[in-house]
Amino acid sequence: MLIVMKQGATKEKIDGIIKMAEKRGYMARPIPGGDRVSIGILYNKGSVDAGHFLGLAGVKEVIPVTKPYKLVSREVQQDNTIVKIGDAVFGNGSLPVIAGPCAIESEDQALAIAKAVKKAGAQLFRGGAFKPRTSPYSFQGLGRQGLEILAKVRKETGLPVVTEIMDIEHFDMVEEYADLAQIGTRNMQNFSLLKRAGKSSIPVMLKRGMSATLEEWLMAAEYIMEEGNEQVILCERGVRTFVRHSRNTLDLSVILAVKKESHLPVIVDPSHAAGVRDQVMPLAFASSAVGADGLMIEVHHKPEEALSDGAQSLYPVQFELLMEKVNKIHDLTCAAAGEKS
Amino acid sequence: MLIVMKQGATKEKIDGIIKMAEKRGYMARPIPGGDRVSIGILYNKGSVDAGHFLGLAGVKEVIPVTKPYKLVSREVQQDNTIVKIGDAVFGNGSLPVIAGPCAIESEDQALAIAKAVKKAGAQLFRGGAFKPRTSPYSFQGLGRQGLEILAKVRKETGLPVVTEIMDIEHFDMVEEYADLAQIGTRNMQNFSLLKRAGKSSIPVMLKRGMSATLEEWLMAAEYIMEEGNEQVILCERGVRTFVRHSRNTLDLSVILAVKKESHLPVIVDPSHAAGVRDQVMPLAFASSAVGADGLMIEVHHKPEEALSDGAQSLYPVQFELLMEKVNKIHDLTCAAAGEKS
Amino acid sequence: MLIVMKQGATKEKIDGIIKMAEKRGYMARPIPGGDRVSIGILYNKGSVDAGHFLGLAGVKEVIPVTKPYKLVSREVQQDNTIVKIGDAVFGNGSLPVIAGPCAIESEDQALAIAKAVKKAGAQLFRGGAFKPRTSPYSFQGLGRQGLEILAKVRKETGLPVVTEIMDIEHFDMVEEYADLAQIGTRNMQNFSLLKRAGKSSIPVMLKRGMSATLEEWLMAAEYIMEEGNEQVILCERGVRTFVRHSRNTLDLSVILAVKKESHLPVIVDPSHAAGVRDQVMPLAFASSAVGADGLMIEVHHKPEEALSDGAQSLYPVQFELLMEKVNKIHDLTCAAAGEKS
Amino acid sequence: MLIVMKQGATKEKIDGIIKMAEKRGYMARPIPGGDRVSIGILYNKGSVDAGHFLGLAGVKEVIPVTKPYKLVSREVQQDNTIVKIGDAVFGNGSLPVIAGPCAIESEDQALAIAKAVKKAGAQLFRGGAFKPRTSPYSFQGLGRQGLEILAKVRKETGLPVVTEIMDIEHFDMVEEYADLAQIGTRNMQNFSLLKRAGKSSIPVMLKRGMSATLEEWLMAAEYIMEEGNEQVILCERGVRTFVRHSRNTLDLSVILAVKKESHLPVIVDPSHAAGVRDQVMPLAFASSAVGADGLMIEVHHKPEEALSDGAQSLYPVQFELLMEKVNKIHDLTCAAAGEKS
Repeated sequence: MLIVMKQGATKEKIDGIIKMAEKRGYMARPIPGGDRVSIGILYNKGSVDAGHFLGLAGVKEVIPVTKPYKLVSREVQQDNTIVKIGDAVFGNGSLPVIAGPCAIESEDQALAIAKAVKKAGAQLFRGGAFKPRTSPYSFQGLGRQGLEILAKVRKETGLPVVTEIMDIEHFDMVEEYADLAQIGTRNMQNFSLLKRAGKSSIPVMLKRGMSATLEEWLMAAEYIMEEGNEQVILCERGVRTFVRHSRNTLDLSVILAVKKESHLPVIVDPSHAAGVRDQVMPLAFASSAVGADGLMIEVHHKPEEALSDGAQSLYPVQFELLMEKVNKIHDLTCAAAGEKS
Repeated sequence: MLIVMKQGATKEKIDGIIKMAEKRGYMARPIPGGDRVSIGILYNKGSVDAGHFLGLAGVKEVIPVTKPYKLVSREVQQDNTIVKIGDAVFGNGSLPVIAGPCAIESEDQALAIAKAVKKAGAQLFRGGAFKPRTSPYSFQGLGRQGLEILAKVRKETGLPVVTEIMDIEHFDMVEEYADLAQIGTRNMQNFSLLKRAGKSSIPVMLKRGMSATLEEWLMAAEYIMEEGNEQVILCERGVRTFVRHSRNTLDLSVILAVKKESHLPVIVDPSHAAGVRDQVMPLAFASSAVGADGLMIEVHHKPEEALSDGAQSLYPVQFELLMEKVNKIHDLTCAAAGEKS
Repeated sequence: MLIVMKQGATKEKIDGIIKMAEKRGYMARPIPGGDRVSIGILYNKGSVDAGHFLGLAGVKEVIPVTKPYKLVSREVQQDNTIVKIGDAVFGNGSLPVIAGPCAIESEDQALAIAKAVKKAGAQLFRGGAFKPRTSPYSFQGLGRQGLEILAKVRKETGLPVVTEIMDIEHFDMVEEYADLAQIGTRNMQNFSLLKRAGKSSIPVMLKRGMSATLEEWLMAAEYIMEEGNEQVILCERGVRTFVRHSRNTLDLSVILAVKKESHLPVIVDPSHAAGVRDQVMPLAFASSAVGADGLMIEVHHKPEEALSDGAQSLYPVQFELLMEKVNKIHDLTCAAAGEKS
Repeated sequence: MLIVMKQGATKEKIDGIIKMAEKRGYMARPIPGGDRVSIGILYNKGSVDAGHFLGLAGVKEVIPVTKPYKLVSREVQQDNTIVKIGDAVFGNGSLPVIAGPCAIESEDQALAIAKAVKKAGAQLFRGGAFKPRTSPYSFQGLGRQGLEILAKVRKETGLPVVTEIMDIEHFDMVEEYADLAQIGTRNMQNFSLLKRAGKSSIPVMLKRGMSATLEEWLMAAEYIMEEGNEQVILCERGVRTFVRHSRNTLDLSVILAVKKESHLPVIVDPSHAAGVRDQVMPLAFASSAVGADGLMIEVHHKPEEALSDGAQSLYPVQFELLMEKVNKIHDLTCAAAGEKS
């Protein structure tokens, strides 16, 4: 950490800060600049809380250098984390695709869609049993009945299933049925839920919060890993910006930044970023091109009758085309991606 | 709702959309514009899901008109909701102030601060027992011990106490000790927690999510009210923007927008918006000036030794000055506020 | 336009608004909803200014329906605008690439880079002679000398040249030398400059403003077209968000939205979005995958010695790899793009 | 500047960076941390361009310490800059108010409004003769005729006049008529215009760009000062965020940050931040409370007939109330503000 002193800060003030740092167990050394003195915190193991120095007399700014994450960091683990679920492998350079409806509505619906996405090449089936909805008056999901339908889908199609988990009290139930537990955008910093996920026996997909920084996202994954669950997949789904022509703004740079900072696999959900069907396919192409470790796509056989998010769900025939193209793009670009690192 | 058709949409397509709307139980009528036809959904009770029409053939845009909230809406209840806690009254035009440290660290710390803020005129004492921290390695709060200290503070000072509740499993415990339960920024859309709060016997303070729209925030309050708890206080604490000179950007316009749309009281937490001590006092002045229904301020008797958020905590002597000024500003502006509405 | 009245607005107030609309020459008709009355402005030619009705007694909200742009609109011109410069064609489904250094530094530098990018397949050469720099103390470009170097590059390599124009007074000079005039991010709403560009005999590339909405961007292009210059290319270069792991957040959805709303070609500049070299290539892949009408890439033969933006400039060998891949991706995806529309 | 090396960067790479820094004329010294080495650039006069080191082999991050601004910096000039225009003084702790319509529409309109705002206590009159409008089809201002009306207003009322200047070619004309030249949001980084303003004999009010950081804004002022004009007033007018309940989000923290970093006076324009009349008055109260050096308020005697921005213009009677309150709030808070610094 670098503690930047105000211009003209007296030797007394500088010494005061150094003493305070030493009192907290750090080694501190003054670094003279052209206009002012900075104080470096040296040889610290782990990150230092900026709040300890911000606002003290003579201090102008505090600049953190060490990242606060450990277990998720590529500096701690250089090799990619590999998450295997059924035949799908996340993190080994392949492009597994998760597909299915926003919400499980009925057995017929789920099966029809699952068969269609399997045929097109999807390796996991998704469908919500518990739905986080902005409005209490919107369809909230079928609950346990939805999970039972997911189990039936897996039995009939062989596809592993992914579903969202919204609270601790339903975690056992979801673990019983799902192959991959999704923690949604709104719960990215629900720390109690993260800790419970850290004790889970199944892998966890952690979606990025609506306005989460890279660091906050990785720290949320750190909560899960710290409790012992190392099978974490990150999922970018767009961030909130001033933009209005898409529901969220898909941040593809974050894929590159995650791969640099962390060994965890990171996939993209273009459906929730887009919010409208037209944009899903091209954004999926772009996600594949940028080097994502997987995709999650909403598909519905009758989007115009869907109980939620119909407007962003692809028709099965569109999904087939998508699969064909994203795989070809992946083949083309993965070589280049290899050369980058 | 207004369904805007593409230019040159055929009569057939227009009729198709109208039929689809009627199938879902709505009355729909074409509205001719200069360049295109729109279709109005008329006489609908409650809001209509835009997703049902977005992406259908011939549809260019869907524009919602009816707001999705009911119970929180000022159109449903014209008079302000009044929340009384001890001597403090939120929503009646007064300016109750909640003050205290970020986290309860010890009995001595809590009592020292509580006595200081009470002397300065604060009407409630705040202090975290369960702390939502970005890092799993940061101080997570004292838990039940912290709640017991809060109880002691109340006993000794007579101040009602406010504390954050982070998950359902600790809700009973918090209810036992606290006079006002705070739901934090990161949990604003933790719908399970909101539903539990809706069944609580104590009032709830709902902080705005880091990038929540007005509508999402009010819908989160709707979740609480819908379960039966009408004692909800909203709290603005800054939103995430591109700005870096404050931790968050305090959005004072939202106070005005909330008061227009809703009957719920809305207070401001300038400490978390600022992130640095220097900005807290002037932002508190501004919050009072804009007509907030209360303030929440972080105060610490030894900020430089605080276990969390010391950099934004005021010294007791600063808090005294703050109280004196915010009350005078409030007296000055409440008259004008009255004339506005 | 839809004027949404407050709940319980009296017939008198509704009639008042209708009269005011008629006074301004519009036809207005009340549209009853479930909770309130709205007033539709019907058969209007062109958009209506919301400000005329916002804030009037009884009015809750004003919702524009008609887009304010005309000449840039795909509804006015269904076929793509084609801009030909040398051998490059923008808007016909091909992927022309503009490449070169941020700034022209010397004849040697410009020629070395131009030859390299030409060899790799670039169809236009870029290089700044007038540089918009945040700091007055940063390198401001070589001015006319830079333009002369550009002319020499064109002569020696046959590549048409692109350069930024920052003010009206240098417009004649730039027109004399350049084949495509670039209007930069910071000048997107420099309306005097836009009007001058509208009278230019050469095509104009209009970069998106740092936080410009789709509508503001298209309206800026409308300024140019309105003055008679129909040869306009739009260029996305990332927008400002809360994100810090890239300089800007590349908004690829806007490519899709532009193509839907407008007939103008739209290209992507991943270099300025990224800000760091590592991200440029994958973002270029993504831009090609999403269906951009071209790319603009910064290349420098000695980035570590560049006078500006060296950190985001590719080495020539990286640019070669980029060209190979973006073209293959383009071939793969353009078919799908065709099916979409 | 601090150059943070990757973990495990070899001594060779570290020495390479140090050499490169020395080659550019800087003194560099390695600073060992717990996990990695950083390299400090020491004793540098002025800021160092991060781009020179970003992206070099072994470099993980580059952290600037020295601010790039000089002339605007409070470290260079500790005393407030004072700008006197007529009886108004900006920067001496008083609260001068600029008021008037968005655009000059006619002599009658201008005079009627000017007399009203003068009576209420405004010290300067504002009114646009050249209007920056998103649409080329909107009212663009009266041009020279508008300036002549401004001159007449000054003669009749004695109020100095403020008007926007959009391009270099009209600068002479505006200088002839105006007492304070306003550079608008969209032109904050129109560097040619800034340089011209730097040569002007009249003071300049520089509005903050729609998404400008504090640093970019101060650097824009640096452009003006660097050319010799030291009479610069900054004006906050709201920034673009995801928020929709106000036109922009008023950033009052920036007032505090400007005062800390710079000696220039900084005022607030709540009218453009709000976009709707209801919010203007309370935001003006807040701006006064936070310690602004002045206010700029839109007033129109017949807002419902205004040619632009009528929805956000106050009625004269509202402006009177506003003046009364903002002055009282100012008296209350300026003492506290004094104690802060």
